Amino acid sequence: MNSNKQILLSLFNESPGGYLSGQQIAEQLGCSRTAVWKQIQSLRDDGYEIEAIRNKGYRIADRPNGVKEYDIITGLETNCMGQNCYYFETAASTQKIAHELAQKGEPEGTLVLADQQQSGRGRMDRPWFSPKGTGIWMSLILRPRLLPSQTPQLTLLTAVAAAQAIEEVTGLTPSIKWPNDLMINDKKCTGILTELQAESDQVRYLIIGIGINVNQVKEDFPAELQALATSLRMSKQQEFPRAKLVQEILKRFEKLYELYLNQGFLPIKLLWESYSNTLGKMIQAKTMHGTIEGKAIGLTDEGVLVLEESNGTQHKIYSADIS
Amino acid sequence: MNSNKQILLSLFNESPGGYLSGQQIAEQLGCSRTAVWKQIQSLRDDGYEIEAIRNKGYRIADRPNGVKEYDIITGLETNCMGQNCYYFETAASTQKIAHELAQKGEPEGTLVLADQQQSGRGRMDRPWFSPKGTGIWMSLILRPRLLPSQTPQLTLLTAVAAAQAIEEVTGLTPSIKWPNDLMINDKKCTGILTELQAESDQVRYLIIGIGINVNQVKEDFPAELQALATSLRMSKQQEFPRAKLVQEILKRFEKLYELYLNQGFLPIKLLWESYSNTLGKMIQAKTMHGTIEGKAIGLTDEGVLVLEESNGTQHKIYSADIS
Repeated sequence: MNSNKQILLSLFNESPGGYLSGQQIAEQLGCSRTAVWKQIQSLRDDGYEIEAIRNKGYRIADRPNGVKEYDIITGLETNCMGQNCYYFETAASTQKIAHELAQKGEPEGTLVLADQQQSGRGRMDRPWFSPKGTGIWMSLILRPRLLPSQTPQLTLLTAVAAAQAIEEVTGLTPSIKWPNDLMINDKKCTGILTELQAESDQVRYLIIGIGINVNQVKEDFPAELQALATSLRMSKQQEFPRAKLVQEILKRFEKLYELYLNQGFLPIKLLWESYSNTLGKMIQAKTMHGTIEGKAIGLTDEGVLVLEESNGTQHKIYSADIS
Repeated sequence: MNSNKQILLSLFNESPGGYLSGQQIAEQLGCSRTAVWKQIQSLRDDGYEIEAIRNKGYRIADRPNGVKEYDIITGLETNCMGQNCYYFETAASTQKIAHELAQKGEPEGTLVLADQQQSGRGRMDRPWFSPKGTGIWMSLILRPRLLPSQTPQLTLLTAVAAAQAIEEVTGLTPSIKWPNDLMINDKKCTGILTELQAESDQVRYLIIGIGINVNQVKEDFPAELQALATSLRMSKQQEFPRAKLVQEILKRFEKLYELYLNQGFLPIKLLWESYSNTLGKMIQAKTMHGTIEGKAIGLTDEGVLVLEESNGTQHKIYSADIS
């Protein structure tokens, strides 16, 4: 990360009216006016539109819709989540990179972002379509003291954080399809993949992957996905700033994660239920052991889905595809 | 692995009386008498004591107490477990190597063995003392379709398989201290470490590590371990063949694993209870959330330890150190 660039963006953020004189920048960065000019040029090269107005100074008129380190870290309102951030223009999969970083000991809250994934993955190694410049493809390293059996709760928690963030930034209200899909108008806009490495009775680390279709248009999706997937832009006829959305997710996630670690799953469960489009509906659950049909009547206190067959038999659903 | 060497050892194993003529060997291996002589020399270099008797042929009079690939695979009575075998004279940790192999896609049943570990690990990254030539330091890759919450059951299953194998080979009957230690005369002779990589609702792979103190004498242990640890040799004043013990563990494990996958945890639970030295006793359980004292009254059907305080309150113990 270019730290001068990041400091400069922070200065712009904090400046009243958004103007900074060359003199102010030179003083704050401790560099020459020529160096200031070079930094401004470098921001322009990154896609920032910067006005220079006589007697007022420089102002950022428009920002690129990027997710580079300094796009994320500048103005990020968290203590931990995302403060240690790795950005890749192209990655095979942010999950894979996050696993490698976690194995090397990178701390809780470490974030991996890519502008594009070449082999993005969803649950059960299904491919996740991750084209360049339009979505959020991110993975977060966590190191909670939990049992492996508790990790599905963090998938549900992440779904709530992502739904809240999307609501805040776009005004759209996604619904959550159990366990980990965010839907708008019955089409998928967000997927969540939670992976863990653990001893049998203790999590060593978790990687939570979040994929959000943000600014794709319909034609960006392969034909076979067009009936199933949507983007935030397609749902509201408007482009959205990706970095802002990542920041909002990290902020919401951090808050819910602290709540969860202090108070347990119950408050998360209530929030999840408020976004759920699964509860109360007749569903079909394809599990490892066969297919069951019935009504999704609720979550247990542990976060397991309870399905009731028409004859009254109740089943706990730990893992399934539902429809 | 030298496959000719392995074939030759198998021929000796299957030969009535244990004798093979140079002619027989040459025919079976499809090589010259000179090549036969070289193979015999190579076995002698590995520590095999081979008699050559006129008119009868060669006979293995004594075997080295090794755990090389062909020591394990020759005569191994399993379909899957250990048939794909990696041996290292020295390894940092067989668990670490097994993780790497699993990530590269090595199949279920793949076994990693080392004659010595430089940084052997037990639960919670505690060091595991693994000196050269005297113990069994092994890790097994499994790929069952299980929930992460079910993996502690496989730790219990492995403890039973190891106890059965030790009983069969040595005549000693170890007791199991919940969840994963095998004890003889209240000292630890075997530790088991189960690690997993998973999605939140599906195991991707498991690595089961088993460490057995086989042929150490008291002075082989560091002073601080002498009061806590024992070896099979120390318990019976006799050395034991390590490869035979590994083979017996793999055979017992495979049988129990098939039983478990077909019939669930109940039969494993009954076997585990028959070896347990924890049930019925007053214990102290140090968990993540504090220390509880009470009587270990049983396992749940899922394999979770149930502890009853003196006031009758029951606690499920998922993860703890007990004493």
